[in-house]
Amino acid sequence: MKISLIVAHPNTSSFNFAVAETVRRKLEQIGHQVYFHDLYREKFDPLIRYEEIPADGQVAPEILEYCRELADSDGIVIVHPNWWGQPPAILKGWVDRVLRPGIAYEFEEGDGGEGVPSGLLKAHTAIVLNTSNTSPEREDKVFGDPLELIWKECIFDFCGVKSFYRKMFRVVVTSGESERVQWLKETDEIIEKYFGVENGL
Amino acid sequence: MKISLIVAHPNTSSFNFAVAETVRRKLEQIGHQVYFHDLYREKFDPLIRYEEIPADGQVAPEILEYCRELADSDGIVIVHPNWWGQPPAILKGWVDRVLRPGIAYEFEEGDGGEGVPSGLLKAHTAIVLNTSNTSPEREDKVFGDPLELIWKECIFDFCGVKSFYRKMFRVVVTSGESERVQWLKETDEIIEKYFGVENGL
Repeated sequence: MKISLIVAHPNTSSFNFAVAETVRRKLEQIGHQVYFHDLYREKFDPLIRYEEIPADGQVAPEILEYCRELADSDGIVIVHPNWWGQPPAILKGWVDRVLRPGIAYEFEEGDGGEGVPSGLLKAHTAIVLNTSNTSPEREDKVFGDPLELIWKECIFDFCGVKSFYRKMFRVVVTSGESERVQWLKETDEIIEKYFGVENGL
Repeated sequence: MKISLIVAHPNTSSFNFAVAETVRRKLEQIGHQVYFHDLYREKFDPLIRYEEIPADGQVAPEILEYCRELADSDGIVIVHPNWWGQPPAILKGWVDRVLRPGIAYEFEEGDGGEGVPSGLLKAHTAIVLNTSNTSPEREDKVFGDPLELIWKECIFDFCGVKSFYRKMFRVVVTSGESERVQWLKETDEIIEKYFGVENGL
């Protein structure tokens, strides 16, 4: 099967990349084809232009290629740090530009854009793996964990991806080697659980 | 007083710009100095580089100028559309790059970055004005309105701005002329209430 793997972090030596590489290796080991995108390395342009917004808008060829791969994916894995309760800007731009009408969702004919659209993505499962420097208690009590609403409800449920799992590895800044090794093992297990040969794919 | 006004939308003929222009006119009419930024027109680069992240990181002069103005502001107004429960990527990049340690917040000496920082912004009030094509019922029930958590808790409370007000104008796509005129009148009233001469500034 085909799985999209998107990572958004400016440092390839970061723990985010260790997680993304673990996901890639595991997926390939299972036998999947991986559409891997390191958005920073690819210099992904996150700024949607006005002419690009409508369903029949002008879309650059490189964006159409991202769209084609995403529409072709049976599963999606996204890896990014929690920055201000949101993804980094480059990944927000990937959402703004790649999750297009006609690719990720569509409105019914005659709908002016205010109605409830249908999700179009054929991927059955989306996994989001985050790093964070905030404790679970403070995240839940003070910040309310907006990343959960964003990815689960606003994005993947909206686009028709009904199976969703998210894990936040934390607190990264104070973690030691053994804790990080454990987190990568956990990453392996998550991929096995959701994308293993005996688990639905 | 000095007020930062930030607008993030790719179309200067949009209702977002009508709102932003209304804010600007009203603030100037009251007698405030406005630091106005149309991020798309200024071609704001939203991609933070790795070397830029630490408190003593390498920051480009144009970013330092945005930082200086924000630190100098007594109030902040932000205008943007609700895209996927988040701001457009260009505005997310403004958050990533301009709300820097030493400008917007700081950790106590000896803190490794996992603790609770102090907010540094001197602005006493932040206003966020959004446009949306989702009904209030669907926003609250299905999406959980992550923009409220993002701006109120994750960003402004974190940076020490304690007075916060947010208004979402909706549903824009089906609104008529008279409704939009009413929304601009409401925009005027919000600015008068929070930044009027008799109201705390």
